[in-house]
Amino acid sequence: MNTTTQKPLILVTNDDGITAPGIRKLVEFMNEIGDVVVVAPNSPQSGKGHAITINSTLTYEEIILEGPQRDYSLSGTPVDCIKFALNQILPRRPDLVVSGINHGANSSINVLYSGTMSAAVEAGVEGLQAIGFSLLDFTWEADFDQAKESIQKIVRKTLANPLPKGVVLNVNIPKLDKSELKGIRVCRQANAKWEESFDERISPHGNKYYWLTGYFNNMDEGNDADEMALAQGYISVVPVKFDLTAHEYIKDLSQVLNS
Amino acid sequence: MNTTTQKPLILVTNDDGITAPGIRKLVEFMNEIGDVVVVAPNSPQSGKGHAITINSTLTYEEIILEGPQRDYSLSGTPVDCIKFALNQILPRRPDLVVSGINHGANSSINVLYSGTMSAAVEAGVEGLQAIGFSLLDFTWEADFDQAKESIQKIVRKTLANPLPKGVVLNVNIPKLDKSELKGIRVCRQANAKWEESFDERISPHGNKYYWLTGYFNNMDEGNDADEMALAQGYISVVPVKFDLTAHEYIKDLSQVLNS
Repeated sequence: MNTTTQKPLILVTNDDGITAPGIRKLVEFMNEIGDVVVVAPNSPQSGKGHAITINSTLTYEEIILEGPQRDYSLSGTPVDCIKFALNQILPRRPDLVVSGINHGANSSINVLYSGTMSAAVEAGVEGLQAIGFSLLDFTWEADFDQAKESIQKIVRKTLANPLPKGVVLNVNIPKLDKSELKGIRVCRQANAKWEESFDERISPHGNKYYWLTGYFNNMDEGNDADEMALAQGYISVVPVKFDLTAHEYIKDLSQVLNS
Repeated sequence: MNTTTQKPLILVTNDDGITAPGIRKLVEFMNEIGDVVVVAPNSPQSGKGHAITINSTLTYEEIILEGPQRDYSLSGTPVDCIKFALNQILPRRPDLVVSGINHGANSSINVLYSGTMSAAVEAGVEGLQAIGFSLLDFTWEADFDQAKESIQKIVRKTLANPLPKGVVLNVNIPKLDKSELKGIRVCRQANAKWEESFDERISPHGNKYYWLTGYFNNMDEGNDADEMALAQGYISVVPVKFDLTAHEYIKDLSQVLNS
């Protein structure tokens, strides 16, 4: 564990791939706080959720990138990266796991689909402190520097005040200039979903194929929901747990099923 | 919706693939209750969690299998199957979505990794009634018939007593003879995790590669947890929600981050 004589060990991963600008910025920010080891996918893994690689094999290699950190590129999913880092690469259990900075939002229901957040959740399952960071800007040219101060603040606060067992953080950052950021708001996951459509096309061979598309539908106007915080210019922080039990319904359901 | 003059429309999917014995048995059981449409992956998708296909395309075909149901084989993940079925295949919103019967347990923490359960959760996100079924027997020769009565009972009870919004069911069935089954117990998700190891091998070309392996570690002795119910010979039913917010920690976290 972190002591006054030892810098915290920070594991960094993401789902956009190890060379994405978002993770390189997160590494830069974390290098100012601790000893950083990166274990991240060697290819884009957006939308992979909590997928793991069980029906095929994994390979990895150390790659040399700018900075004092060590970088390992893995052929798997974000959740694979956490498992592999802990088991095969890190010299000891890390003091913190950070995932991101994702190119695009992982607020509300996106926590289910997001490889970025699933990596953080997996770290939580392993009993580690973990935070996923996402910026509401899909582009490769996104400006991550505006969020540097806030990200470092959230990381330092978490190192100094550990999260309770079974909780990790989902941090989303609006696409705003630093001067426009209103602050940090701790929120609940908004009630929202994707309204899908499938774009049907014809292959050169005459066969139909489909692209998943759709639009995001926020059905939640609550001031305490992450979507509202982001719309109002706040960085949203949702404490996320992986006990999915609807505890409040156990008693009623037991009556229904055992009647 | 289901009326006295119309049979319920039941969508069936899984993660072991459309030809797996487990889904064929579930179709057989559901054909006795409603009008069944199957939209399931054309290949094994175990461990795919809540993954969706966004960086490549999907294809599907209708296939002809024994029984009155219609069967559609999709090139995607279990969650893709739900989205595609609702958007492209079903004539109306189904009255129920069932996923499985999975070959192997999806109790406790496995709910995160399981494609079977992620399909049920996705149906819940769409506002539908949904249940995932799993049998604690990995083999292709597993005996699913022992669970027929219990599965049909849970389905009929759910159709008659709809689950609250935002809740789906995770049903796990012990590998026992029907006469040994103790009944149904509604439970919480046990506190358990996988202890990973990676089996390192050398390819014919001299390169290292790894298989993810490990063993399951149940750290929960609670009588109200799903692992204990299964160990005692009960069918476990966990009401699962997809609002992952740790509501109980919002206030404390807000004080930490805004101090």
